[in-house]
Amino acid sequence: MQPVSLVALARELKVELRGDPDVLIRRIAPLLTATTGDIAFLANPRYLSQLQATAASAVILSAAHAAAAPQGCSVLVAEDPYHCYALLSQGWSRRAIAEATPGIHPRAVVEPGAVIHATATVGALAYIGARAFVGEHALIAPQAHVGSDAFVGTATRLAPQAVLGDQCRIGARGIVHGGVVIGADGFGFAPHQGRYEKIAQLGAVRIGDDVEIGANTCIDRGALEDTVVEDGVKLDNLVQIAHNVHIGAHTAMAGCVGVAGSTRIGAHCTVGGSANILGHLVLVDHVHVSACTVISRSIHKPGQYSGFFPFDDNATWEKNAATLRQLHSLRERLRALEKSMK
Amino acid sequence: MQPVSLVALARELKVELRGDPDVLIRRIAPLLTATTGDIAFLANPRYLSQLQATAASAVILSAAHAAAAPQGCSVLVAEDPYHCYALLSQGWSRRAIAEATPGIHPRAVVEPGAVIHATATVGALAYIGARAFVGEHALIAPQAHVGSDAFVGTATRLAPQAVLGDQCRIGARGIVHGGVVIGADGFGFAPHQGRYEKIAQLGAVRIGDDVEIGANTCIDRGALEDTVVEDGVKLDNLVQIAHNVHIGAHTAMAGCVGVAGSTRIGAHCTVGGSANILGHLVLVDHVHVSACTVISRSIHKPGQYSGFFPFDDNATWEKNAATLRQLHSLRERLRALEKSMK
Amino acid sequence: MQPVSLVALARELKVELRGDPDVLIRRIAPLLTATTGDIAFLANPRYLSQLQATAASAVILSAAHAAAAPQGCSVLVAEDPYHCYALLSQGWSRRAIAEATPGIHPRAVVEPGAVIHATATVGALAYIGARAFVGEHALIAPQAHVGSDAFVGTATRLAPQAVLGDQCRIGARGIVHGGVVIGADGFGFAPHQGRYEKIAQLGAVRIGDDVEIGANTCIDRGALEDTVVEDGVKLDNLVQIAHNVHIGAHTAMAGCVGVAGSTRIGAHCTVGGSANILGHLVLVDHVHVSACTVISRSIHKPGQYSGFFPFDDNATWEKNAATLRQLHSLRERLRALEKSMK
Repeated sequence: MQPVSLVALARELKVELRGDPDVLIRRIAPLLTATTGDIAFLANPRYLSQLQATAASAVILSAAHAAAAPQGCSVLVAEDPYHCYALLSQGWSRRAIAEATPGIHPRAVVEPGAVIHATATVGALAYIGARAFVGEHALIAPQAHVGSDAFVGTATRLAPQAVLGDQCRIGARGIVHGGVVIGADGFGFAPHQGRYEKIAQLGAVRIGDDVEIGANTCIDRGALEDTVVEDGVKLDNLVQIAHNVHIGAHTAMAGCVGVAGSTRIGAHCTVGGSANILGHLVLVDHVHVSACTVISRSIHKPGQYSGFFPFDDNATWEKNAATLRQLHSLRERLRALEKSMK
Repeated sequence: MQPVSLVALARELKVELRGDPDVLIRRIAPLLTATTGDIAFLANPRYLSQLQATAASAVILSAAHAAAAPQGCSVLVAEDPYHCYALLSQGWSRRAIAEATPGIHPRAVVEPGAVIHATATVGALAYIGARAFVGEHALIAPQAHVGSDAFVGTATRLAPQAVLGDQCRIGARGIVHGGVVIGADGFGFAPHQGRYEKIAQLGAVRIGDDVEIGANTCIDRGALEDTVVEDGVKLDNLVQIAHNVHIGAHTAMAGCVGVAGSTRIGAHCTVGGSANILGHLVLVDHVHVSACTVISRSIHKPGQYSGFFPFDDNATWEKNAATLRQLHSLRERLRALEKSMK
Repeated sequence: MQPVSLVALARELKVELRGDPDVLIRRIAPLLTATTGDIAFLANPRYLSQLQATAASAVILSAAHAAAAPQGCSVLVAEDPYHCYALLSQGWSRRAIAEATPGIHPRAVVEPGAVIHATATVGALAYIGARAFVGEHALIAPQAHVGSDAFVGTATRLAPQAVLGDQCRIGARGIVHGGVVIGADGFGFAPHQGRYEKIAQLGAVRIGDDVEIGANTCIDRGALEDTVVEDGVKLDNLVQIAHNVHIGAHTAMAGCVGVAGSTRIGAHCTVGGSANILGHLVLVDHVHVSACTVISRSIHKPGQYSGFFPFDDNATWEKNAATLRQLHSLRERLRALEKSMK
């Protein structure tokens, strides 16, 4: 990639430049490992000592820390340096990655009735089902799958091996990573005489705008009505969203989270990695679930909720875990003691 | 889809109709949101008030609740309304989804020696390995994979991007959802001088009839003998079944469950979401494991087993978790007190 | 497969044969189920009684147990019988599986600038991105994906539906199972005015030699620098490795493990199934994490670490779990009692 002058970056990011406008930037790097030609950022004051020692040619920081940059290091002064770095990284990515040439690869398969916008790209060995719609500037990567009657919004990207199931919809500017399966059948059965009778899953999955879905994550179609993921939701890898779940706008879930059927999660929530939220619950807006926590009841009050077994060296854990199995009787014994003391 | 008369549905489901035989049904819907043209069901008496207020044109219910339907709402009287709804949903799905045209898509790849029944369907960009067998009315979706010497039973369906590995077998009427990997190598190594020497996995995976496997679930091939999944087993998404596991008939596992190597699970068991069952254990028939529970020893008695850390607001959890690390010494202190009281 | 004489196996494995050199071996089998024509092994003295009762034609064992083999059962005497079995299984696998014919399947897609070694194999419907490199004897299975500028080392194998993302590298003798996604974007966002601004992930994934990666496992690309997996690492299925994680050489992780962002794990560690290691931590070499344990702080001392809630019958668990939520106050009450006793 061609290096970019700092003044060009400052203009692109609409921030103030203090220092050498002509210094050429070749790379974004962490403060600690940055060197000549690199731009770094300081978002967390905890790393102030790294700023003072950095060999970066330029640093993005807030006005409060501008004076702390080492001599000879130019600075871009941003109100929110971390947000500024996010925008910088996006520009970098756009310059680094050659724009895909719009059009349908001759080795893709497009079924009858599918509508693909002239500005969209469909890669080799991709599959577009009957009557599917692929919007402006959308990108269907090689070997990705768009089901029958599915809908891909403007500028949305499906990575290799991603599956958008029949009748499912995703809005604009979405990113669906590799191996994602949207629209598999929800897990619904009627137990009958010792066997399970399948309940056909007649709903679909409806996903809003600006949603990102991590690799190998699954979002099941609804039983009767749709599973819904609202605008701005971010899901990490290997997340399981069961049928008829509803995820409110701008909620984020880290890797390996499981959400069971029909649960309704509010807007602006966060769910830490490997946390689980059981079925048929309601979590209001602004609930924050810590990693590895099991949410077994509805949460009606915003806040941070936690619950996992604290690890220890194996021998200590074994003793404590064994005692935990008698905890209730320990309480009874304590009560008896208290009583006898009165 | 064409609407269907209630009398036609009653005949199809072999249940008694009370009310207007000619009312046209356009949709299956929940009691709460159903409207004219919809059929709903009442399986759980907890929702009796929803029945009384429903605007559905028809409702499936048991004889005991028939009188509670609102005036003008026709009823189908079923012995087991939930099972009846399951059958209804299946018929609906059959009518809604155009039957695939049997045959091999010209853009599929079929290796020499593979046998594909004339009534089977192989989609675009699907791969059928050498000497594989695909049975009557089987459906291999676009981009799915059937390995060499693999076997797909009658009417079994593989969804897009599903992989049935070399030499693996699945019986009749199975459903394998997107991204499933059947027959990857089991995780077997001989530690040797600080490195791991691979143990080649020479077994395969053997799956019975009427098995459904959720999206991105993995079932590994056995080390020497086969990994076995018996008839009627239902696995949800993102489940991990390690090598040489044996799952008994009509056992169901919810999303994100992990079963470690060589464990033997009985018939008619249920395993809640994100539960884990460690390796080399035996669980008898009719064991029910709650969500998020870790089964670390064999279970010889049917029943419900549980064990996860109850969540709390973060501050309370932190206090309790810290104390938990001293639980064993708390017990010792309690003992000392009890002794001194004697 | 053709049977093999025991003397030929002894030569291949470089071990001493005691018994009939000409006995023909048709299969490797466990001691318990082995019969005429089978070879079994005894690695763990716990199974000595199975050795004494085996019907195998031959057994691999250590010199100490050679005398315990039943009459008529030939033995191969190995220093480390389990390691010897691993080597035997590898030879077996090589003989059983027809060597792939090198070359590029006409139904594969290879983009301009890709370099594929003449001895490498690229299967049907596989995709090789622009400027990618596929080394000697490498095997890209049908429907697998090698991204632009990606690198596949000597004799490394990608299974069906595996994805090696753009710019990502894997060394020699690697095995990447089905559905693996290497190089999806790390989960990085800058929260800004109630929304998440994407941080483009500009790093890649760098994987050493002799690494095996289980089905549907995900390894994300780094934010600025690379995510790194060193030589000899073994990852089981459905593992999540977040961006900028560093995994030291010869470390093994069982199924469903999650490692959050920027965590650094040492060499020769083991992580049990479904364990989770939170972000920005450091684990030194030779740390062993038990299954289902949550590591929430750095570990500076080698050893075994554990922590999961012990399961119980449901009623007992409910009582103990409820009491656990008052554990801190129980401690306070115990303290008060102790004080009052003084």
